Amino acid sequence: MANSNDQYGVVYPKGFKASGVHAKIKKKKKDIGIIYSEAPATASGAFTKNLVKAAPVILSEENINNNIRAIVINSGNANACTGKQGYKNAVLMQETTAEELGIAKEEVLVASTGVIGVQLPIEKILEGIREAADELGDDKDEGIAVAEAIMTTDTFRKQFTTEFEYEGKEIRLGGICKGSGMIHPNMATMLGFVTTDAAIEKNLLDELVKEAVNKSFNSITVDGDTSTNDMVAVLANGASGVNKITDKDSDLYAMFAENLIGIMKKMAKNIVLDGEGATKFIEVKIKGAKNEEDAIKAGKSVATSSLVKTAAFGEDANWGRILAAVGYSGIEFNPYETNIYIGSKARELLVCEMGQGLEFDEDIAKKILSEKEIYYLVEMDEGKGDAVIYTCDLTYDYVKINGSYRS
Amino acid sequence: MANSNDQYGVVYPKGFKASGVHAKIKKKKKDIGIIYSEAPATASGAFTKNLVKAAPVILSEENINNNIRAIVINSGNANACTGKQGYKNAVLMQETTAEELGIAKEEVLVASTGVIGVQLPIEKILEGIREAADELGDDKDEGIAVAEAIMTTDTFRKQFTTEFEYEGKEIRLGGICKGSGMIHPNMATMLGFVTTDAAIEKNLLDELVKEAVNKSFNSITVDGDTSTNDMVAVLANGASGVNKITDKDSDLYAMFAENLIGIMKKMAKNIVLDGEGATKFIEVKIKGAKNEEDAIKAGKSVATSSLVKTAAFGEDANWGRILAAVGYSGIEFNPYETNIYIGSKARELLVCEMGQGLEFDEDIAKKILSEKEIYYLVEMDEGKGDAVIYTCDLTYDYVKINGSYRS
Repeated sequence: MANSNDQYGVVYPKGFKASGVHAKIKKKKKDIGIIYSEAPATASGAFTKNLVKAAPVILSEENINNNIRAIVINSGNANACTGKQGYKNAVLMQETTAEELGIAKEEVLVASTGVIGVQLPIEKILEGIREAADELGDDKDEGIAVAEAIMTTDTFRKQFTTEFEYEGKEIRLGGICKGSGMIHPNMATMLGFVTTDAAIEKNLLDELVKEAVNKSFNSITVDGDTSTNDMVAVLANGASGVNKITDKDSDLYAMFAENLIGIMKKMAKNIVLDGEGATKFIEVKIKGAKNEEDAIKAGKSVATSSLVKTAAFGEDANWGRILAAVGYSGIEFNPYETNIYIGSKARELLVCEMGQGLEFDEDIAKKILSEKEIYYLVEMDEGKGDAVIYTCDLTYDYVKINGSYRS
Repeated sequence: MANSNDQYGVVYPKGFKASGVHAKIKKKKKDIGIIYSEAPATASGAFTKNLVKAAPVILSEENINNNIRAIVINSGNANACTGKQGYKNAVLMQETTAEELGIAKEEVLVASTGVIGVQLPIEKILEGIREAADELGDDKDEGIAVAEAIMTTDTFRKQFTTEFEYEGKEIRLGGICKGSGMIHPNMATMLGFVTTDAAIEKNLLDELVKEAVNKSFNSITVDGDTSTNDMVAVLANGASGVNKITDKDSDLYAMFAENLIGIMKKMAKNIVLDGEGATKFIEVKIKGAKNEEDAIKAGKSVATSSLVKTAAFGEDANWGRILAAVGYSGIEFNPYETNIYIGSKARELLVCEMGQGLEFDEDIAKKILSEKEIYYLVEMDEGKGDAVIYTCDLTYDYVKINGSYRS
């Protein structure tokens, strides 16, 4: 699955540079990163729907419809719930980045992640930005550095690349993201940045990013909380030299869409895999709900249930909790026309038929649930609504990590 | 706070008997209980809103508007997701209880709690019912026995009593309940039974029980899940000899209402205190929301946030998570006109003013959060909507208990 170029991440497409430095916001690890495009890039993004929005989110939403040349990101401090001073500081980050790179401040997006409610150590940060601007490069090292700089409680770096050929030329995409904790539809503490050397019309990119976000970042959940800081941004700088994508019905659009959705799905899945304390990746599939909306509702209800998630951790085939979670999801369905399967790649087991428990082989169930990737399939008979939601189990370590996040 | 008569529980009011026996549904502990009223009692109840309803819930909803003489309860098996056979078994429990007590089956409510999706060991259960019917009594021992028989993962018995005088005569109320896990508004895996020797008109009792349930069982949450089996029932048999309550504006109604709401609040709080693995009792207070509905929404969002609940366990004053949970609750409010306090009985500390973090004394915060009962107060400036939601922290032991519930 892993692409051998993955470590290049956002510098894999032509015309992008990056860097990551340690500005001492965090004790030891890198905490300031810059992604830079040599040419102005068409940009599109998605932002947290939490009413409590961090200053960098507000600022970047104001600028996302401009052509973008750079994204500056700090980890270690979210610059959220920091009032007017917080917004001023986000603007200072934007201005300093622009100055250092010789571009307009309107061409710079700002993102932050970390602890809420504490003012940024702004001098350290501006110093870090200057340093990061000096160190921009398009080699593997810089691709790795920026991916490291955006991490918080993540246990591994998340970098991905993909490419396709069109009329003899190559179009590349690269992405980095950070997740862990609070990952939920509507963009919890999650940052994701995708670069591509494709050229695409702004309105087509907007439409496509919306679709891709729904199929990826909005289909995952770690603990049901949604945060103040989350942001996905896609930059398309056209450096591949391939014609601009202007037609939704073209082959080129279809190929680009497949690759963009694909890389964003990979990013989202890896965020779940790195859910705080997670030991298992869980796919919740809903089939046959009245419509897609109901299927998503039911899937999210199952995927956010603490009881379902602890049972997965305990490798306990407690399907009653799955059915109960569908029952309180708010959708209409007939439990007595509902089947539940538990499965892994190797095998699948029907555990509840027409709403009633079966006497299934507990050993087979144990075997299935002992694997690292499992799925629950809920099959109803209400209509054609299907959905897939990704989540992870709820473990001792989740409690440990989140019990002392600030200390 | 504890009433010295509490151990009498449901046999404290006149004209009630009870019993609890071990029918071997569970390995060692009591698992069948009966509550019996010598005279037909006016009854009212509240039932789970989960679309997946256990057979005993369906059956008891059909009978709750009859005069009731007995409630039969088993623990160890929920008789949920058990299809037609399950409903038949619930009816068998009802019929056997009626036969043994010489009453009509329509006068019997049935409740079950335990594992989902497995057929009842019905022979053992009917045998247990016969035994329990023989052992009915109105002494402390029987009050304790029935409270024990309804427990599942509860770590302590929950029995409460209260009384008041009216024109020289005494009216008594007694209650037992079981909770733990899946406790959430809309009646998660929660059973609550209140007996009283008051006499009250059915329609007044219905109205009052609805109000009392909203202020008690529907204001608590342990993990946000709502279950298939939950039920609250109140029986009023009139044995006190006090005139029937027929007027909502009477003093007698007011006194009865105060006592009924009071005992049900005590029951609900103790369910939270016994939340699976809980080490802390948390009161989430919302003040100044646009209206009560918004206040409840915000309060429940905070009280079900895994991040807020793990931070409480870790004694970490991470108020940003509280504000974020209000932010994604779906209500409209201005974060920049919102204050957050953390408090205990001894002291209160403002940690976020007008949506911005304050530099508060971390030692005082630690001291507050080290106490067993704490509260979070979120003060907005949107209107007059207030709400209080009770919950507990999320701990290692929650994961442990729920990771292997069936084994």
